[in-house]
Amino acid sequence: MSTAVDPNRFLADLNTLRQFGRLGSGVERLAFTPEDRAAREWLCRRMVDAGLEAGIDGIGTVYGRWPGVSRAVLTGSHSDTTTQGGWLDGALGVVAGLEAVRALRGAGPDGPVGIDLVSFADEEGRFRGTLGSSVFCGVLDPGELTQMRDLDGHSLADALEECGYAGREMRRLDRDRIVAYVELHIEQGPRLEAAGIPIGVVTDIVSMRRCGITFLGRADHAGTTPMDMRRDAGAAAVRFLQTMADAFERMRRPGTVWNFGNVTMAPGAGNVVPRRADVLLEYRDSDDEFLEQLDAVVRKAAADAAMQAHVSFEIRPMVHMPGCRLSPAVVDTIEAAAGGAGAASMRLSSGAGHDAMVVGRHVPSGMLFVPSIEGRSHDPSENTDDDDLVVGVQVLTRTLARVAATS
Amino acid sequence: MSTAVDPNRFLADLNTLRQFGRLGSGVERLAFTPEDRAAREWLCRRMVDAGLEAGIDGIGTVYGRWPGVSRAVLTGSHSDTTTQGGWLDGALGVVAGLEAVRALRGAGPDGPVGIDLVSFADEEGRFRGTLGSSVFCGVLDPGELTQMRDLDGHSLADALEECGYAGREMRRLDRDRIVAYVELHIEQGPRLEAAGIPIGVVTDIVSMRRCGITFLGRADHAGTTPMDMRRDAGAAAVRFLQTMADAFERMRRPGTVWNFGNVTMAPGAGNVVPRRADVLLEYRDSDDEFLEQLDAVVRKAAADAAMQAHVSFEIRPMVHMPGCRLSPAVVDTIEAAAGGAGAASMRLSSGAGHDAMVVGRHVPSGMLFVPSIEGRSHDPSENTDDDDLVVGVQVLTRTLARVAATS
Repeated sequence: MSTAVDPNRFLADLNTLRQFGRLGSGVERLAFTPEDRAAREWLCRRMVDAGLEAGIDGIGTVYGRWPGVSRAVLTGSHSDTTTQGGWLDGALGVVAGLEAVRALRGAGPDGPVGIDLVSFADEEGRFRGTLGSSVFCGVLDPGELTQMRDLDGHSLADALEECGYAGREMRRLDRDRIVAYVELHIEQGPRLEAAGIPIGVVTDIVSMRRCGITFLGRADHAGTTPMDMRRDAGAAAVRFLQTMADAFERMRRPGTVWNFGNVTMAPGAGNVVPRRADVLLEYRDSDDEFLEQLDAVVRKAAADAAMQAHVSFEIRPMVHMPGCRLSPAVVDTIEAAAGGAGAASMRLSSGAGHDAMVVGRHVPSGMLFVPSIEGRSHDPSENTDDDDLVVGVQVLTRTLARVAATS
Repeated sequence: MSTAVDPNRFLADLNTLRQFGRLGSGVERLAFTPEDRAAREWLCRRMVDAGLEAGIDGIGTVYGRWPGVSRAVLTGSHSDTTTQGGWLDGALGVVAGLEAVRALRGAGPDGPVGIDLVSFADEEGRFRGTLGSSVFCGVLDPGELTQMRDLDGHSLADALEECGYAGREMRRLDRDRIVAYVELHIEQGPRLEAAGIPIGVVTDIVSMRRCGITFLGRADHAGTTPMDMRRDAGAAAVRFLQTMADAFERMRRPGTVWNFGNVTMAPGAGNVVPRRADVLLEYRDSDDEFLEQLDAVVRKAAADAAMQAHVSFEIRPMVHMPGCRLSPAVVDTIEAAAGGAGAASMRLSSGAGHDAMVVGRHVPSGMLFVPSIEGRSHDPSENTDDDDLVVGVQVLTRTLARVAATS
């Protein structure tokens, strides 16, 4: 099994990618911006240099085919970032995949199964989360694509036109060719660091719900209007938050997480009873059926709170992301590869969505994590020790070699 | 006792004042704006026309002296409004006072006590709530005045300069002259309308606290950070709101009101644990000592919530408005005047602050309310039936005549 990973070459490439859209210690490389496009072109050239047949397709996904094989393990991630993002989210998986390809090209894989490398477009969702992998897996129809706009109202069609991608073929997952998908990523959470373990073996990606709850009442003078004559949207929101905080605590399973990410009230003055209150709520768990139970609790809590405060309410589902159980065989292989590399590992769920969640519904897939310092991510402070980055690429390379050899 | 009130003249003047800064059905006449200045000049001329010796002083307060007397009952209110305010808040008391003066000038008061009329500057607090009446009562020192700025950073000194008021003497309450203060105002709440009663006899103005509570934690990915590894400022705010909502319900006395006027969280994204959460809280009661008990509950609830969520907190007192018990003698006189005018009345507390709260600490004072339609105020929808407005000016006039006659 190959040990031809070159840590310096790998870290140098990771650092080169960091320069596209660099923002202090972080990176801002939103999908389809000039920085993102330049990074994709650089990546495509690097794939060609590594001996892959590479190109950028009609949605901006960079894809490198291992030549001369009819089957391949696919690896990669994405190279776009969030606003004021970090340098490793996505980039690590792509550059580690590149290094793995170089290492395995040098050694030659043991069998007729090669390694394909991908950098999916717009994973972070300027237009839609996991856009590139969703197009790749055929779960978005072309009609949907023509409707998409970013928060500034810019259309995806225009963005693709500006990048020069418009009109190109959109590459689809070739299920005859791709035997598995493996993605290395930073954890984006604190668990590996807290445990002092360099490799996380991801067993599943959790399901997630995001919804906005709006209460609409009536603005009144908060000094002169008796409590029982108000239609207080703020009071409804407070009651709702209280009920949900209690319900989450009472119902939580190991791994359940939730977040009251935002609350706003209008008009927002100290002496005016809020006419409107908005709550932004997210909750995640490995078990989608459990989330359905929570959906019902949210609906009941909102209805009760609205009734008590004599206001109306509305729940707007914003994200309904079903999770994904990763391939037990690939999970076992990653775990064995970590052991083979002498790296401690632990199994965990991914609380964040990834391209592997999309691809994993179509081919056996696996993910491995390396620690995030202080759990930071989606922020310029996002970072991982170089030693852990190198362990990550080594375990990824061993995993790819092993999956290729046994497929 | 005079019945020379002219309803048409009174309503016409009220409507004329409404035109300064008119905004649809409402008025926007912030203190020291050109509209406010023009309204003061108009008012000053009307006072002169009514036979008063009138002028605008160094803080913008319009004052009209009943000539030839050494003692007087003072009446009036303010003529500035809030942003997007209503046409009656303040304006009613000033124009009703003007009509009362005209009625009583025509009839001649029974004794040597006249009626002085005032329109205090900036009651609504562009620079500071009850600015004019506070200067009038000598409770603000000149040093404080030079420091005051509005929300846009504009200084009071510049505003006074622009109006041409700078350098003029600031009129002070003459305690030898003023025997009492009586202010007619709209209720700004729904109680009189709900009871079907045209006159509210105000027994006291409640004490009020406004404070901002800030929780500071750490932003983390809300999917990947386990609940017990967060420093969640939003969770602290939710716990605080919950504790306070319960405490207010448990501790409330008749007439206690409170308001969670605003809640904000930052960065405010669904998938980011809030780094910062702010709560804007107000509470009012007739008993200032009870509010001190509530202050202690707020402090304890904030400290407990911060500790539980592993975040820091800060409480910023923003308004600490002590209330004011109005003169029992004046209260009785207003009640008797209502009865004399054939108008039903009820006693109530004022949940909002007024100039009478400031003046009432220095001379015997009273307030009377007329109903607000649907309780609306500080909004263009603010309104009162013409019939109720006329009853208000009649009861005010009778009250002033009676206080003057018996002082």
